[in-house]
This record gives sequence, structure tokens and C-alpha cells, in this order.
Amino acid sequence: MFRPQIKVLDCTVRDGGLINQWQFSDEFVRKVFLALSQAGVDYMEIGYKSSEKYFSRKDHGAWKFCTEEDLKKIVGGVETKMKLSAMADIGRIDPGDIPPKSESVLDMIRVACYAKEVDKAISLVHHCIDKGYETTINLMAVSKVLERDLDEALNDLSKSQVPVVYLVDSFGAMYSEQIHFLAKKYSEALPGKELGIHTHNNQQLGFANTIEAIIAGVNRIDATIYGMGRGAGNCPLELLLSFLKNPKFDIRPIIEVIQEMFVPLKAEVEWGYHIPYMVTGILNEHPRSGIKVMAAEKMPNLRQFYEDLRDDTQLD
Amino acid sequence: MFRPQIKVLDCTVRDGGLINQWQFSDEFVRKVFLALSQAGVDYMEIGYKSSEKYFSRKDHGAWKFCTEEDLKKIVGGVETKMKLSAMADIGRIDPGDIPPKSESVLDMIRVACYAKEVDKAISLVHHCIDKGYETTINLMAVSKVLERDLDEALNDLSKSQVPVVYLVDSFGAMYSEQIHFLAKKYSEALPGKELGIHTHNNQQLGFANTIEAIIAGVNRIDATIYGMGRGAGNCPLELLLSFLKNPKFDIRPIIEVIQEMFVPLKAEVEWGYHIPYMVTGILNEHPRSGIKVMAAEKMPNLRQFYEDLRDDTQLD
Repeated sequence: MFRPQIKVLDCTVRDGGLINQWQFSDEFVRKVFLALSQAGVDYMEIGYKSSEKYFSRKDHGAWKFCTEEDLKKIVGGVETKMKLSAMADIGRIDPGDIPPKSESVLDMIRVACYAKEVDKAISLVHHCIDKGYETTINLMAVSKVLERDLDEALNDLSKSQVPVVYLVDSFGAMYSEQIHFLAKKYSEALPGKELGIHTHNNQQLGFANTIEAIIAGVNRIDATIYGMGRGAGNCPLELLLSFLKNPKFDIRPIIEVIQEMFVPLKAEVEWGYHIPYMVTGILNEHPRSGIKVMAAEKMPNLRQFYEDLRDDTQLD
Repeated sequence: MFRPQIKVLDCTVRDGGLINQWQFSDEFVRKVFLALSQAGVDYMEIGYKSSEKYFSRKDHGAWKFCTEEDLKKIVGGVETKMKLSAMADIGRIDPGDIPPKSESVLDMIRVACYAKEVDKAISLVHHCIDKGYETTINLMAVSKVLERDLDEALNDLSKSQVPVVYLVDSFGAMYSEQIHFLAKKYSEALPGKELGIHTHNNQQLGFANTIEAIIAGVNRIDATIYGMGRGAGNCPLELLLSFLKNPKFDIRPIIEVIQEMFVPLKAEVEWGYHIPYMVTGILNEHPRSGIKVMAAEKMPNLRQFYEDLRDDTQLD
């Protein structure tokens, strides 16, 4: 699938940091940055832009905050075409904490929100556009949103200035048919805007659903190195780049950094396909209960975990 | 996707045994048999039917041979609707070694062959039909077969008595578009026959490609518990049963046997997504070089492994 309009964003450090509270060494983040840059990836999302008013440096590594000082330690002295992105969550950052683009090495701010918060997200995006950034809105957890509410959110987005809207399968619950249905809906509701896709791998469908979205016309694609991300992880970058066949991409630096950094990291930090995440995925639930089970000192009975979560979700 | 015609075949012991030369304890195989039976799976493929003339019991466990004596140790005394299958490879069994159905607990013989051997496979299948068995032909490694040769094999199959023909992605090299193209081709070439699908997970597409085949009308579906199978493994049964939504299936016994038997086994025996298998998958190569790399005492340089295999496959 060679379509030159496709742009790839790697969010390994941002989404992977949800596992370890962004406790990555500068050396690790620098090696990821260099590998992505050499691989021809279009954007690196290096973390969250959050306020230190709301989160402590004691509990969170540098990439929860993405200060200019920390960013420059990573990207300083490297010539690259790759752009830098940070994600902002509604309620975890004050607009005043975002510097003007002219004072930042960041190129893009992606605002993540639930459908019900879309107007807050649009307001923050307009603020970021005024400050000179590229922007996107990532509408999370839409597998739980009723169609009428989703249509209303899409209608609000269609009237906004945000140029890119992401379809996000936060719970890894969707099959290709849902991806196709939603990509078509977004596309019809948002004329003139680009669409993006962000998947989770609870059902081993992260890569496949990304392909399905690409076939449906989506051009802004999220992936992470070796699939690293919260819970079951995300669409693996190495598979995506190989599928895309665009000559500007080179998977060799990614294979290299996986062997050097990610295979050892995976022995320490948990992500990937496991039954607790599979269960939250097939039941269309937030992964938090699966993460709790995976972190337990003694793995509880997984049949019971499935039955309890299924019964929880089958209230009268 | 609820379509009552769909029948699921579990080949955990047969395909998983390729990893450990079928060195499973009787207790393990019995627990798999009981879990599959309770889960409502239609067929269990318990191993290969091979001749002891060609293979030694010293090097291979019981499920390389599937003698009646060994089979009865597993299935004896259990009432079940589940049928039993064994696979026969061309050149590894003599027709005379297959007992009449009336003397066997097996219900089905699946004959695996390459496209160039299809006439030998048809001959063996006709022999098995005469002896009273259900049969299928599984056309392996078609991602390497030129379209003209594939059309010829399909034409031969269309004139045979075999009722079921499998589309097999032996190298885990196919994307959904190839699956769709081939399922349509098989369907047009084989009127009146059922189609089957057997996938490998080198690119994390085993489950997704199985779904794609089901959407394209394929009704005979292979899977393995926890995806256990050679190299990157297969379509995971627990994901498939959850997708199918047929009320006759119950995933709870599968979750239970995964926790009890397969999570511990996976710590000893290697299968699943790893870069060496990803590399053979994206290059459409037999997994053997990836398996060799994974078994090496010290993992070689994986970037080099990719470059060497890519260059091998790019002869003038």
C-alpha cells in the first residue's frame, strides 16, 4: 500500500510511558528518537504536555511534562525532517502552560478527549493553533459511545478548525467491520479534514485494524516500536512500515533498536497479548481491570475474572 | 459473525507439536481434548498420521503417528460430539497404513500438500474416502505459487471428490487483500466445495486474516489454543470463538486450560510474535531460518539477518 499522503506517527514513548510512568532514561529516548528519524517516520510523539500543578515529578518521568529543557536534551544537535508531537489531555493542562510555537521544539499538539468533552478539546486546539502548532483531536473510547452522541461530536468537530481527527479504539474491542463503518462515518461527517487511526492490540487486531483504516482512506497512522503501549499495546511500527512500502521508510533502524533496547525492556516491563487484556477487549471494557490482574502477585483465576467482568457488564 | 455453517477445527496438538516433536504428556493432550469438547469445538486435530517406516519413536512423540492405541488412551470413556482429525503429509504415509474408518476413532483425514503434489493428494484423499473418512486437502504455501500453477491445481481439485479445500498462509505473509483475492479465486474455481482457512501469525495477522476469510464466505476454520503453533503460531482459538458468537461455543474451558497448561508451557517452549518470524513473514519465506535464529544460543544481529534474507530473496 503505497500512498504518499500517508503520514506515520510513532507514540512509543508517550503510550509506552503509560506502563512505567515515563521512567525512561534519556539514553533510551534519544535512541528511539534517532531510530525513528533514520527510519523516515514523520512524527515522534514524545510524551504528554501536562502541568506540574496537577502531577508530581516524584511520581512521573520527564515525558509526562515535555518541558523545553528536557526536550532539547533529546533532540539537540540532530538534523532531522521528523516532527515532534506531544499529547494534551483535557483537564490535565492549562492553556497558559503551552508556550508559543516560536519558543518550542514541538511541532504538534494532539488533544485527546472523550466525546462528551469535545467542545473543551476544540477550544484547546484553537488556542494551540493560535500559538502556531499543528493540531489533531483524538476522540477516545468511541466503542462505548452511542451513535447519536458520536454524530453530535463529529458535527461539532466539522465546524472547528482542527485539521485532523483520530478514530481511536482505546479498548482494543473493534473488528475490521466496526473500523470500516466508523472510518466511513467520520469521513462523511468531516469533509476536508484528514482522518487518523490509533488502535490497541487486545485481540491481536491492532495492525489489522490499522490496515483496514488505511484501506478506508485514513492517512494519519499511529504505531509504536515493537507494539509497546499500555496493556496489550498498539500497532507495531515495524509491521506498519513494511506494509506501507513507501520508499522513504527503512525498517532496519527499527529492527536494530528493538534488538538493542526493546527485547530487554520487555523482560522487565509488561505489554502485549495476554488473557486479561483479551478479556477486557472482547467485553469492550477499559483495560484497567486487566492491568490490575496482570500486576497481581499471584494471578487470580482467569475464568472467574472473565465471568465477573462479563456479569458486571450485563446489568439489567 | 454468527453463521451456523461455520465449523471450527483446533489443531493445537498437531501444529503445536511441530515445536516440540509432539513430546506432550498424555495428561496434557487429554486436558486439551476435554477443554475443546466442553468449548463446543467441532473438530480436534490431534496429530499427524505418519508411518513408523519413515519416522522413529525415539525422535517423535505419539502424535506424529496417531496409532489407535494412543488415540484411545486420550478419548476413551468420554461422550462428545467433537470429531477427531489427523493430518497426512504426502510422502510420509503409505495408504496401506491407514486403517478402515470402522477400525479407527478418527473421523477425518486432512491431506496437506504443495500445489505441485496435488494429484498425489487427490489420490490419497480418494483412498481415505473409500475407507470411510471425511477428508480435506490443505494446499500449503500458496503465497509462493504462481497464479497459472495455482489455477491448474484448483482445476484438478474441482474435478476430485474432496469436499473441502483449505487456503493456507504457511509463511504468515499475506495481508487481508491477498486473503480476499484467493478466497474469491478458490470459491469460483471450486463450485460445490466448502473452503477452509489456516493462517500463521508472523505479522500478527493470523486472527485478522481468518476473519477476512470468514467474511469472504470460508466456513472451515483452523485455530489453536493461545495461538500455539510452529514459529509465530496460528489464529488463537479463544479470539476466534469469541468473534463467532455462535451460542454453541463457550470460551471459558479454553481460558481455563490456557491458565493451567499453556501459560506455563509458553515459558518452556517458544512460539508467538518475534522479530525473526516477522522477518520471514514480510519476506514471504519459510520460517525455518527464523526458527534457527530463535534457537541460537546467542541471538545474532537481527538487522543483518533481515538484510541477508532480503538479499537471498532478491536474486537476479
